[in-house]
Amino acid sequence: MTQKKAVLVIGAGDATGGAIARRFAREGYIACVTRRHADKLAPLVAQIEAEGGVAHAFGSDARKEEDMVALFAEIEANIAPVEAAIFNIGANVRFDVTETTARVYQKVWEMACFAGFLMGREAAKVMLPRARGSIFFTGATASLRGRAGFSAFAGAKHALRALAQSMARELGPQGIHVAQIIVDGAIDTEFIRENFPERYKLKERDGILNPEHIADAYWTLHQQPRDAWTHEMDLRPWIEEW
Amino acid sequence: MTQKKAVLVIGAGDATGGAIARRFAREGYIACVTRRHADKLAPLVAQIEAEGGVAHAFGSDARKEEDMVALFAEIEANIAPVEAAIFNIGANVRFDVTETTARVYQKVWEMACFAGFLMGREAAKVMLPRARGSIFFTGATASLRGRAGFSAFAGAKHALRALAQSMARELGPQGIHVAQIIVDGAIDTEFIRENFPERYKLKERDGILNPEHIADAYWTLHQQPRDAWTHEMDLRPWIEEW
Amino acid sequence: MTQKKAVLVIGAGDATGGAIARRFAREGYIACVTRRHADKLAPLVAQIEAEGGVAHAFGSDARKEEDMVALFAEIEANIAPVEAAIFNIGANVRFDVTETTARVYQKVWEMACFAGFLMGREAAKVMLPRARGSIFFTGATASLRGRAGFSAFAGAKHALRALAQSMARELGPQGIHVAQIIVDGAIDTEFIRENFPERYKLKERDGILNPEHIADAYWTLHQQPRDAWTHEMDLRPWIEEW
Amino acid sequence: MTQKKAVLVIGAGDATGGAIARRFAREGYIACVTRRHADKLAPLVAQIEAEGGVAHAFGSDARKEEDMVALFAEIEANIAPVEAAIFNIGANVRFDVTETTARVYQKVWEMACFAGFLMGREAAKVMLPRARGSIFFTGATASLRGRAGFSAFAGAKHALRALAQSMARELGPQGIHVAQIIVDGAIDTEFIRENFPERYKLKERDGILNPEHIADAYWTLHQQPRDAWTHEMDLRPWIEEW
Repeated sequence: MTQKKAVLVIGAGDATGGAIARRFAREGYIACVTRRHADKLAPLVAQIEAEGGVAHAFGSDARKEEDMVALFAEIEANIAPVEAAIFNIGANVRFDVTETTARVYQKVWEMACFAGFLMGREAAKVMLPRARGSIFFTGATASLRGRAGFSAFAGAKHALRALAQSMARELGPQGIHVAQIIVDGAIDTEFIRENFPERYKLKERDGILNPEHIADAYWTLHQQPRDAWTHEMDLRPWIEEW
Repeated sequence: MTQKKAVLVIGAGDATGGAIARRFAREGYIACVTRRHADKLAPLVAQIEAEGGVAHAFGSDARKEEDMVALFAEIEANIAPVEAAIFNIGANVRFDVTETTARVYQKVWEMACFAGFLMGREAAKVMLPRARGSIFFTGATASLRGRAGFSAFAGAKHALRALAQSMARELGPQGIHVAQIIVDGAIDTEFIRENFPERYKLKERDGILNPEHIADAYWTLHQQPRDAWTHEMDLRPWIEEW
Repeated sequence: MTQKKAVLVIGAGDATGGAIARRFAREGYIACVTRRHADKLAPLVAQIEAEGGVAHAFGSDARKEEDMVALFAEIEANIAPVEAAIFNIGANVRFDVTETTARVYQKVWEMACFAGFLMGREAAKVMLPRARGSIFFTGATASLRGRAGFSAFAGAKHALRALAQSMARELGPQGIHVAQIIVDGAIDTEFIRENFPERYKLKERDGILNPEHIADAYWTLHQQPRDAWTHEMDLRPWIEEW
Repeated sequence: MTQKKAVLVIGAGDATGGAIARRFAREGYIACVTRRHADKLAPLVAQIEAEGGVAHAFGSDARKEEDMVALFAEIEANIAPVEAAIFNIGANVRFDVTETTARVYQKVWEMACFAGFLMGREAAKVMLPRARGSIFFTGATASLRGRAGFSAFAGAKHALRALAQSMARELGPQGIHVAQIIVDGAIDTEFIRENFPERYKLKERDGILNPEHIADAYWTLHQQPRDAWTHEMDLRPWIEEW
């Protein structure tokens, strides 16, 4: 009898999170996917099942400690051990600093960083006794540098990168693979198609990221043997200016 | 009649904040110093006055938006224009990531980052119409890289650095000088003297930072003409390993 | 008839270069491998052939412009188009700065950087008309920061990283994938086995890098579709301190 | 009788090097200034003398080890101990990588990096027995990141930064202050005035760097007490995009 394994994708509401869940599901992992409202995940679950996989959708507020704790408890008890936990919530907003309300600044941090901490910590708790597992975070250009209008978003992304780096140094020698993938460029999503049609046209010449290819990178990292782990890598379309 | 000018030091309860306030006061600035409880600032105010300066102490919770807004309003209305706003709150704690409570993670961010955002934003609001002023943040090694045990602290410090960088790029061309000073090493404080006596002994051979010398750096940056502004500099004892 | 393709590995004398050549050869690429003296490459060629691949060994001084130019001319004319060019020469030496001779400083740069420039430029020349190809450089921890005793080596590695980054920004939008893999840790080589036996023992618990796994990373990057290219990634054993 | 002290400025042919020499001369240092042809330094020497200072001009090829060794020997024997050695040679060229000749790539490195190594090493040799002295290098944006067209220049500048960082970590605990100043922006020079008149017009609103203000930063660093040394700082006009 084969050991069941779960992948948890926090923030599976967008194209990237969904593609990651499907990629792991195709490899035999039970996909546990979350977003605020579980019903919106029905199409993703249906797609995974149509591809022969198994998926569970969870409505869960990733910023709430009790929700995150309950989520891990539920999956570990009733589904399968979490072998990979992937944090994929963004919160890309642009405001002049004087127009950035305290509420916005805090919400962006809660979504793009604090929720990542909660996932990372809970994942570490269940993985450490097994001395095995992957904890991956999705980064962005804003993880690496600040920019006019991005006080809030760059702050959250920088903090998330510090979390990934601190956890990697702490948990690596205990057998947990912590990594960050910096996605630098527009992704092929509904959002870009509708709001940035000019940019979306770049798709014709591979100028925006295909979520499936982002998902491949996550899978590749998860498969790395422990003598050669990647902690950080970037992904960017060939024509992207950076 | 000379124009009155104020320096605001958020987090003047430690040796560094106090030294910065005194440095600017010696140059004729009215020192507005804050910490949670104003009464603990009495010795600093007395010292500034003994050195011939003028100081006002404020009990203010830097993490509370309404406190920060009220603080700027009060100083601008009744004391003097804030020419330099300096954020000097740290929150250096060390916890394994699995031992880091949500409360600790959030408190560290609130103190070491969110309060900095509030100060920075309010300072920008009063300085932009004058197209003049300095907004400085105190950084640490944790601003630059994560480390085992520092998920929370490095996260807050990275986010603060992203804030400084974003604000510099946004406000620089509008005349506001935004900078960050990375202090890397132990500082000559009561805290180090009492808790790390071995380390404190390094003082005999200049192995820990003198707060007065840190304050000199802040003053130097504030004096820079706008054709040659520094955005980031580090300060470290000669024998420090890094 | 299938199009023939060549991979060129400059500095195939060590375990990593050899593993990369073998990896690409197993995928059907003609492996063109170089080091100063071709006869020392006979075992590698034999191994590739035993694995069913095709290999050509070249004795070539990578620091000599005429050698590098002739090498590309020969391969392109008589073997196959160079689809991937991989620079893998290191020159890891440790000297106090006052003990670093001008000759050492220059030699280290010539081997670890200048030769990389020659390869990168010649590869770009043949790849640009085809708007296709990979140019990869092997980096090290010294690519990212200087350290006592590493003035020469860190200098060369930093310069190589600047080359990779400049070339990526210049050639990416022209269809050439330029990347750097930062290898941080001891590699399973004869050199480590003989000179650092204690360190070598870490192999028992995956504490040193397996060259085959490094080679996998190069192959993975070469396979990336152009909408999601990696420019930089690190590789490090799980127990490595960094 | 006061102890005589020398400042050595390698690459004093431009506005920045000249300003640094004059700044130290005004503080009582004997200015030893070099460029390839000493006669071109006559105006600088005259200016320093007119300001009441003392200066010596040296025609010296900074890329030649024997020249650098002889230079330090001469100054130490016949003029004064070198208390500060400042490397200020740039070599900002722009070429597509395929248009970069081996000669250009090498020359840029020799001027902007190898010469800096020679100066740094010789300075370390004379300063170490005194456990005192400053070794400063002038950096640029290209010290921090590569860019299309800057393979050669960014390579040399990255290598110089690695040198500064390695030397700082090695020599700091031995009493030598090693630092790098990143100058990011156009400087008020003849070259900019003649070749980039549009850019030069920014001078009217402080949009290009005044060499005197750059020189102030070098002097400030040299004056720092050893408990609070800066290793790296940037300087940039307020309106510069970065």
